Amino acid sequence: MDRLIEALSKLPGIGRRSAERLAFHVLKSSAEEAMQLSEAVADVKQKIRPCGVCFSLCEGEECGICADGRRDRSLVLVVEQPKDLLALEQTGMYRGVYHVLMGRISPLDGVGPGDLTTERLMERVRQAEANCGSVRVEEVVLGLNPTLEGDGTALYLSQQLEAAGVRVTRLARGLPTGGQLEYASKAVLADAIQGRQSVR
Amino acid sequence: MDRLIEALSKLPGIGRRSAERLAFHVLKSSAEEAMQLSEAVADVKQKIRPCGVCFSLCEGEECGICADGRRDRSLVLVVEQPKDLLALEQTGMYRGVYHVLMGRISPLDGVGPGDLTTERLMERVRQAEANCGSVRVEEVVLGLNPTLEGDGTALYLSQQLEAAGVRVTRLARGLPTGGQLEYASKAVLADAIQGRQSVR
Repeated sequence: MDRLIEALSKLPGIGRRSAERLAFHVLKSSAEEAMQLSEAVADVKQKIRPCGVCFSLCEGEECGICADGRRDRSLVLVVEQPKDLLALEQTGMYRGVYHVLMGRISPLDGVGPGDLTTERLMERVRQAEANCGSVRVEEVVLGLNPTLEGDGTALYLSQQLEAAGVRVTRLARGLPTGGQLEYASKAVLADAIQGRQSVR
Repeated sequence: MDRLIEALSKLPGIGRRSAERLAFHVLKSSAEEAMQLSEAVADVKQKIRPCGVCFSLCEGEECGICADGRRDRSLVLVVEQPKDLLALEQTGMYRGVYHVLMGRISPLDGVGPGDLTTERLMERVRQAEANCGSVRVEEVVLGLNPTLEGDGTALYLSQQLEAAGVRVTRLARGLPTGGQLEYASKAVLADAIQGRQSVR
């Protein structure tokens, strides 16, 4: 029991008291439920690995999106983390494939381009050009977070990708749908004015 | 004293108790301070009126922005309320002039295009075309709130304005700068994917 409480209290946002409550819940639950939790925890580390193509999470060699023939392989959306991919995928608006960087360039934390999957992204862009059998990457959409480090990473990637001769775009920035203009920050309003678009 | 408390408690967000507290503060403050408040309240109704051109708030016939010769009169940004104008003006990014609608089309509240300053906006667009002395309006930026009613109003205006032969744009919609992709709503992410822009 002490080992379980110890292990649970290492999870983020769960202190000693919460861990005790969770441990007692496991103790009271059926043997089947407890085994399901135990196996799920073990499996997630043993079976889930990065996709060989896009570094998203998957159980096999290739993730479901990369293996899906209906997705547009000429369009690659670059995100920082697998959870960003999930958020974008839930919109149902995007029909291309992804590339997960596994972080962002952050000089203060000692994270450079070499610590990310940037080289593999460049290989994907170049490979498709060389190999006439595969689909050529025509557009790379930079879907990094609209933060200082995300913007820095996007700048680095856009320079590399443009040198490789691929079209580079980024996710739109501006007013969040459903919000109010009067409560938007100056930076958001400045983006909205600069990025204004034709109505048709 | 009772009259002051009564009057103060009619202000939004100020109940009977707060009104009493404010009234006692006025009573304790110097005669000069009390007179300043009294005059400011009287002046705001007597002196502030809508600008004759853009319906923004001003003290004379024409507001400071409409009277400013350095502003680009060929570019008109349409907003719902004077406070939206203030928020946009604080960014320092916009060099055109404004038009305040004084509300938005809202069928549920019985507000139609006739209750707003839409006809005067159309006059501004047409007038500048007819009169060779004034600057022709070339672009109208729709800066309505990214809400259901704001979008409806924008749709109505864009149809009217395009029929008048003027270029119509709207403020960019997408990820708010400084936010995180994983916490953005589906609608915001869908806008961001659809409105993606070339990096250069």
